[in-house]
Amino acid sequence: MIDRNQEDLRYMQMALDMAKLGRGYTNPNPMVGAVIVKDGQVIAKGYHHCCGQGHAEVEAFKDAGNQDVTGATIYVTLEPCSHYGKTPPCADKIIEKKIGRVVVGALDPNPLVAGRGIEKIRNAGIEVTTGVLAEESIKLNEIFMKYIVNKEPFVLYKSAMSLDGKIATASGESQWISCEASRKEVHELRHQYMAIMVGSQTVLDDDPMLNCRLIEGKDPIRVVVDSSLRIPMTARLVKTARDIRTIVACTPSADEKKIKDLQNAGVEVLSIEAKDGHVDLKKLTEELGRMQIDSILLEGGAALAAAAFGAGIIDKVQMYIAPKIIGGKTSRTPVGGKGVEHLSDAWQLKDITARNIGNDICITGYIRREA
Amino acid sequence: MIDRNQEDLRYMQMALDMAKLGRGYTNPNPMVGAVIVKDGQVIAKGYHHCCGQGHAEVEAFKDAGNQDVTGATIYVTLEPCSHYGKTPPCADKIIEKKIGRVVVGALDPNPLVAGRGIEKIRNAGIEVTTGVLAEESIKLNEIFMKYIVNKEPFVLYKSAMSLDGKIATASGESQWISCEASRKEVHELRHQYMAIMVGSQTVLDDDPMLNCRLIEGKDPIRVVVDSSLRIPMTARLVKTARDIRTIVACTPSADEKKIKDLQNAGVEVLSIEAKDGHVDLKKLTEELGRMQIDSILLEGGAALAAAAFGAGIIDKVQMYIAPKIIGGKTSRTPVGGKGVEHLSDAWQLKDITARNIGNDICITGYIRREA
Repeated sequence: MIDRNQEDLRYMQMALDMAKLGRGYTNPNPMVGAVIVKDGQVIAKGYHHCCGQGHAEVEAFKDAGNQDVTGATIYVTLEPCSHYGKTPPCADKIIEKKIGRVVVGALDPNPLVAGRGIEKIRNAGIEVTTGVLAEESIKLNEIFMKYIVNKEPFVLYKSAMSLDGKIATASGESQWISCEASRKEVHELRHQYMAIMVGSQTVLDDDPMLNCRLIEGKDPIRVVVDSSLRIPMTARLVKTARDIRTIVACTPSADEKKIKDLQNAGVEVLSIEAKDGHVDLKKLTEELGRMQIDSILLEGGAALAAAAFGAGIIDKVQMYIAPKIIGGKTSRTPVGGKGVEHLSDAWQLKDITARNIGNDICITGYIRREA
Repeated sequence: MIDRNQEDLRYMQMALDMAKLGRGYTNPNPMVGAVIVKDGQVIAKGYHHCCGQGHAEVEAFKDAGNQDVTGATIYVTLEPCSHYGKTPPCADKIIEKKIGRVVVGALDPNPLVAGRGIEKIRNAGIEVTTGVLAEESIKLNEIFMKYIVNKEPFVLYKSAMSLDGKIATASGESQWISCEASRKEVHELRHQYMAIMVGSQTVLDDDPMLNCRLIEGKDPIRVVVDSSLRIPMTARLVKTARDIRTIVACTPSADEKKIKDLQNAGVEVLSIEAKDGHVDLKKLTEELGRMQIDSILLEGGAALAAAAFGAGIIDKVQMYIAPKIIGGKTSRTPVGGKGVEHLSDAWQLKDITARNIGNDICITGYIRREA
């Protein structure tokens, strides 16, 4: 007989692999996968495809078709829901289907659920095992885990620099610092994150599209922080605002006429409280959270990045480091602004990992918050 | 019967581990280890302790004492020498001792030896196997491999920066960016490299000792690049020049009186041809090579680092990246100067590796030279 723990791990990994198929489409819902096993055979699989569609368990039952699932084991990467949302509770469905055993990955951090799904199932006399590959499921859903609790978007700051910390040469050449594999991965991030955010200087400098091109995927909502509405009406972002959702955040003192012009071009303009003369980034992300935007990929430039660290809105940092030395006392670096005065005031990262990607090294870490 | 290849790898690894015991002491000689195996038993081991003392093979025969080594196998990480240097040829010794088989790691790059040691041994009718863990031996002796061929020192540029590429805060605070484990490793490098090199600005800013403190080891020869002799007589480097060998490199137009003063304080002053008003770093390293200095740890600052990349004297780069964000448009970065104008002119690195050290990430790479 095969060890049950080993079997659980194997099927939960399968469920996690299913969950990942929803990447970029489920927001602001989590990625969830489910696998139904009966008599040692996988008889059905499912995953949450996109917000508004069936939960993973429902999809798995659908996949099972006419097969009898009585007494089967269902593996779900996230605790089955117990409340009526857009769909009826999955816990009820599991009980109704006479499932014999439920194996759960992570518990749902949603205060509306919080262990209640499992309780309901246990109370129906069904055996429940929890915490199988829970960390993997939590990690996969780091965006959801923050958003469901705080109602504020999870913010990833990403940049690419040379091994001596430069994002451009002294003459301003910046395309491309990083290798093709890194740039492709960034476009995957654009697909996975609901919104992408840049400062107005980046628009003025590069006139970027900020869409998802190098891979097949969906375009993120484009958010430009532009306190005094400096971006020109001829910017590509503005000209394509009717095709790709585009938000410009300014302060209440921004020019009324320019606001109207932008709105007429299809841009959503958010007037956000000012702090030190600039858009208060904390207030802006709160507002974006209220707009159901669960995640932001912050791509720069240096001044906005500095302001974002200062405002405490960044959760995660991803730095692509190219194996080259650019030099230059005045060459630009990823995070500008004034910077911290003392080393003890630097923003600390935890859970640091480094990996090779193409010719580059990618370093990832999470902002350490005061306890 | 155990597979002979597996056995060869095992004993060669043992010989490599012996070789490493000489680290920091053998320069400008290579690190070499030897293991003698007879009837499946290790009967003796040896390694090259320091320049002027016995080669690894000689040390192993010494370790064997009165035991009969006839027909035994000797594992040597580097090809046995065939020429008379400070000691008689090891190839002769091996033949004389009636060794049955010789297993060699890397071939000797020294043009005086170049396969001749192996040839001599083979001609004596002894079986020779080469190339066992050769890469490991070459890597271990990367300093020697360059120096023996070029007669110029192997130069490692090391720096420590934040994840956003800063070596100090905007106010200039730089102690310490990196964690204790990284700083200890740098002191190990100070032990391993024959010389440490900094620019005069670093002496003016930090008044460093540049010795080996955080671990037990030997102090490197201290080299200050000081084109116009700006360092004060009160600098700690100058005041301790009688205890730790200290070299200051200036241009021919430097002040005669200051040269005399420094010499009287025990400093060796090298007058090196100028290039663009500064010490020509290529000429300086050539001169240091002639002085039997096989390796230089270049610790900065930013201007010297930029000049060194420009002069093409750097072989290897080691960057300690601390998991923190410092920010600051004007905060200092590791490599200053003018920098390259175009990305295509950046200094490219190859064989990039990243590893965790304490809380930091250390990225290592080698300068890619035109073919």
